[in-house]
Amino acid sequence: MSFPVPTMPVPPVSVVGLGQLGGSLAAALVAAGRPVSGWDVDPSARGAAAARGVAISPELTGVVVLAVPMPALTSALDGLFLDPDATVTDIGSVKGAVVAALGAAHGDRFVGGHPMCGTERSGHQATDPTLFAGARWALCLEPGTDLRRWLRVAEVALAVGAEVVPVTAAEHDDAVAAISAVPHLLAAALAAAAAEAGPLALGLAAGSFRDGTRVIASDPRFVTALVEGNAGPAGAALDRVLAQLDRPWPDLVTAGHTARTAAPGRRAVRVPLDRAALLALGRAGGAVDRRQAAFVEGWVPEV
Amino acid sequence: MSFPVPTMPVPPVSVVGLGQLGGSLAAALVAAGRPVSGWDVDPSARGAAAARGVAISPELTGVVVLAVPMPALTSALDGLFLDPDATVTDIGSVKGAVVAALGAAHGDRFVGGHPMCGTERSGHQATDPTLFAGARWALCLEPGTDLRRWLRVAEVALAVGAEVVPVTAAEHDDAVAAISAVPHLLAAALAAAAAEAGPLALGLAAGSFRDGTRVIASDPRFVTALVEGNAGPAGAALDRVLAQLDRPWPDLVTAGHTARTAAPGRRAVRVPLDRAALLALGRAGGAVDRRQAAFVEGWVPEV
Repeated sequence: MSFPVPTMPVPPVSVVGLGQLGGSLAAALVAAGRPVSGWDVDPSARGAAAARGVAISPELTGVVVLAVPMPALTSALDGLFLDPDATVTDIGSVKGAVVAALGAAHGDRFVGGHPMCGTERSGHQATDPTLFAGARWALCLEPGTDLRRWLRVAEVALAVGAEVVPVTAAEHDDAVAAISAVPHLLAAALAAAAAEAGPLALGLAAGSFRDGTRVIASDPRFVTALVEGNAGPAGAALDRVLAQLDRPWPDLVTAGHTARTAAPGRRAVRVPLDRAALLALGRAGGAVDRRQAAFVEGWVPEV
Repeated sequence: MSFPVPTMPVPPVSVVGLGQLGGSLAAALVAAGRPVSGWDVDPSARGAAAARGVAISPELTGVVVLAVPMPALTSALDGLFLDPDATVTDIGSVKGAVVAALGAAHGDRFVGGHPMCGTERSGHQATDPTLFAGARWALCLEPGTDLRRWLRVAEVALAVGAEVVPVTAAEHDDAVAAISAVPHLLAAALAAAAAEAGPLALGLAAGSFRDGTRVIASDPRFVTALVEGNAGPAGAALDRVLAQLDRPWPDLVTAGHTARTAAPGRRAVRVPLDRAALLALGRAGGAVDRRQAAFVEGWVPEV
């Protein structure tokens, strides 16, 4: 004897901003068979999304994803029609300031997010519906976050193949300072110093230079927002890197090699729908990879 | 009416050390139809090279390429039979100390070299006959270098698709400090500091961290030799990077972006077989891509 399996209601998704990340998200949702609409101030971005099957509409409902550059976040909805029941999220690379500003605007309808993907390219020409597959997607669980809305946004991330990392905005900003802001600053300094060293150095530059500087090929406005918008944690993280550079080089090389090549296994876990338990998962380096009705499933690294 | 085109004599090449670089070079020379023999103290490396068509022999003649780790350079020929007319070269990533040590051992039969390629992998399992295609290959032109022997080694590099950059050992070490030693140190510091930041940071790490730390996945013995063997220039280059990091971040980001994305064109040049003219080509950021009888052809970046 069998019972019908209850299915989750699938809320529609509206993506505002159809550049590399927003356009990729909308295309990935189309590919996943999800109802998705999109909007962009740029007609060519709207046209490119429409060609991928995204309904173009200024009416925003369900989960509304603000996929615009961070300086444009607070004005992204100007002139658009936001369903008062909609859950609003963003994909900005800094969370403290964004959660404060958009929380003030949208109250507990807002859930801050940050998918950890994207390349040095930008714009709708760089759209890739597989961009989120296997990526981590940080989602903020603040003391005032509505857990049901958090799950609704998480479900969108899971639908495009991402794994959801529950974080507070402050934890996010500290962590991302170490693994994103500082790499961008080091890449900039490395490239600028090599240019200063002269044409012979650039003429000999190969893989280690190319990889070590790749991210600073990104749009400088994006990089500046990433580091200046997270200046406190980025400064602290940079100081930790500078302290490492003061170590004897053989010790530094060994420590860096060990950290870079560590490959912990994964252990599957089941986590109750509880803020403290979800945040503990993120702090342990784990992520949610499936939503169930009364809990989530995920994994943590083995120690 | 036509005349027979005079062909250059093609000297045989003997490669000592058949790991990633030596094994790739030997395999590339086989693919180019060049006479090549090889030797390695490790029977499995000899077997892998033999399977690629490399003649295995302890008798070294023609252009003898020492493709062993730098600490082993001075003992690499122990127990082997070196033709007294052979030209000896190496592929070590530091040139000042190597040119001094091997110049003392081999006199003007030695020409220092450094192909700017290779990956974080090592050993004969990482052999790739296309490794040198399009790579720069620094070749040292010291005041005492025999230009005919320099050209013989250059011809080997050109035969596997590399472009030859004429340098002095001191210029090489300064340039490589900026574009190789320092990227390795920054990668190590970035990885070690992120590990210190904790599991959440590593759990969120994505492309900018992965690329910024890739090179420190290399064998730590190789990296330590690279930075410790070039400690003076590497320290000076690191200081230049630290000075860049003291700039206001928006300025740093702009300068780094500009340096990373500059894409100068190339202008073809013909360079006489003259030490000063060849070194000027390297200092301008250019390279030799073809050898003729009485000159070389190459290119310089346009300004």
